[in-house]
Amino acid sequence: MSGWLRVVGIGPGPERWITPESAEVLHAATDLVGYRTYLGRVTPTAAQRVHDSDNGDELARARHALQLAAEGKQVAVVSGGDPGVFAMASAVFEAIESGPLSQRALDVAVLPGVTAMLAAAARLGAPLGNDFCTLNLSDNLKPWRIIETRLRLAAQADFVMALYNPASRARPTQVHEAFAILRAELPAETVVVFAKAIGRPDEEVTVSTLGEADPAIADMRTLLIVGARGTRCLARPEGLPWVYSRRRLDGAP
Amino acid sequence: MSGWLRVVGIGPGPERWITPESAEVLHAATDLVGYRTYLGRVTPTAAQRVHDSDNGDELARARHALQLAAEGKQVAVVSGGDPGVFAMASAVFEAIESGPLSQRALDVAVLPGVTAMLAAAARLGAPLGNDFCTLNLSDNLKPWRIIETRLRLAAQADFVMALYNPASRARPTQVHEAFAILRAELPAETVVVFAKAIGRPDEEVTVSTLGEADPAIADMRTLLIVGARGTRCLARPEGLPWVYSRRRLDGAP
Repeated sequence: MSGWLRVVGIGPGPERWITPESAEVLHAATDLVGYRTYLGRVTPTAAQRVHDSDNGDELARARHALQLAAEGKQVAVVSGGDPGVFAMASAVFEAIESGPLSQRALDVAVLPGVTAMLAAAARLGAPLGNDFCTLNLSDNLKPWRIIETRLRLAAQADFVMALYNPASRARPTQVHEAFAILRAELPAETVVVFAKAIGRPDEEVTVSTLGEADPAIADMRTLLIVGARGTRCLARPEGLPWVYSRRRLDGAP
Repeated sequence: MSGWLRVVGIGPGPERWITPESAEVLHAATDLVGYRTYLGRVTPTAAQRVHDSDNGDELARARHALQLAAEGKQVAVVSGGDPGVFAMASAVFEAIESGPLSQRALDVAVLPGVTAMLAAAARLGAPLGNDFCTLNLSDNLKPWRIIETRLRLAAQADFVMALYNPASRARPTQVHEAFAILRAELPAETVVVFAKAIGRPDEEVTVSTLGEADPAIADMRTLLIVGARGTRCLARPEGLPWVYSRRRLDGAP
């Protein structure tokens, strides 16, 4: 049996957003490796070995998965969302780069998936319908000053922003700092959306403005969307308004 | 029969990347509306009416789809990639905003999908593994000076860039202008990837650097990825190198 490793994203939650390619690999693998919360959403076959771990040390998890593949196992590394967006794929390549040269010949592939911002955007309407940027607000792996600079420049570029990991129990205050930076750069009426646990039973969506929003409602399961100049709210007879970004910007030919 | 409208993304090409939710709606709809090229990738049932159109006037296509839904049809608006990223979803909401108030009560929803940059990133490794921005290089709906400004600020922010629609027959020179801007802002060794028709039979991937790349190879089916400071190439025994962005940046705690 010849080993392989696939980095698989299971999307934001429900099975209806897992691609057929990913579902097939999740079924075909001999070994499933991942963070406990994500593995808990997958039903293993009787023959599969499940290697779950706590959140945190992604590099150790990636090394373990590569080791299993080198031993001939057929390994699915299970990630939330899309594995290439603030998830396991980068950790796997960091492990390959720092690992034994022999592992560079392993049969490794990443399978694309639905990342949280696309699910949140679809739920709201089309807030990512014009140029946007995607930032991880966690400073676990980069200094906070880089995050500050990126927020400022993104605001000056009039990008819509999709902000992952805005807060956690260990980082409760940074989302307030991020709002302070954005409030200094952008108009108070800028549309802000807190999209929590999209597609899951406890989904919660709050549409507000930069001036009025309370950043304290963001937690580690929230994706934050900050609108641009062309982002609009469109009231409906009932329920949340649609939020979308216009394709056409002033001065277009 | 009660009308509805779903904006559906069929991903970059192959069926293995179409979510079960989207596949189900494509099957259940009474009417399929879309650009001819995308509709050509869907096999309609015998009972379905297909309304195809040329590329271009997305707003007219969106209005037609809304009209069908208002008449009680169950309409899938078929988009490439993810419908919310430089695709049909924004046009549908622009049509709702400028259309009759009665249409705001229609049963409308957007279904998330796999957008081109996620498929391209997965094919390459994990170039979007750190903060990134997503720009549409077409100036059909926004002035070129906005694109120039966004490119400059994105470079200063050290974002990885996913650049959609870098060139077309009508816009052959702008990708050269974009490269000139990026070359003035970023080191010559910055990783650049031309990802053409990812997942389709004529897929072509070129990995190069900002200093050496020839922008002329970009066309309307190319997604361009421009790396950041933390983006690395990792040689393999054969085939293309892996391209990935490190999660950790200098000065991290």
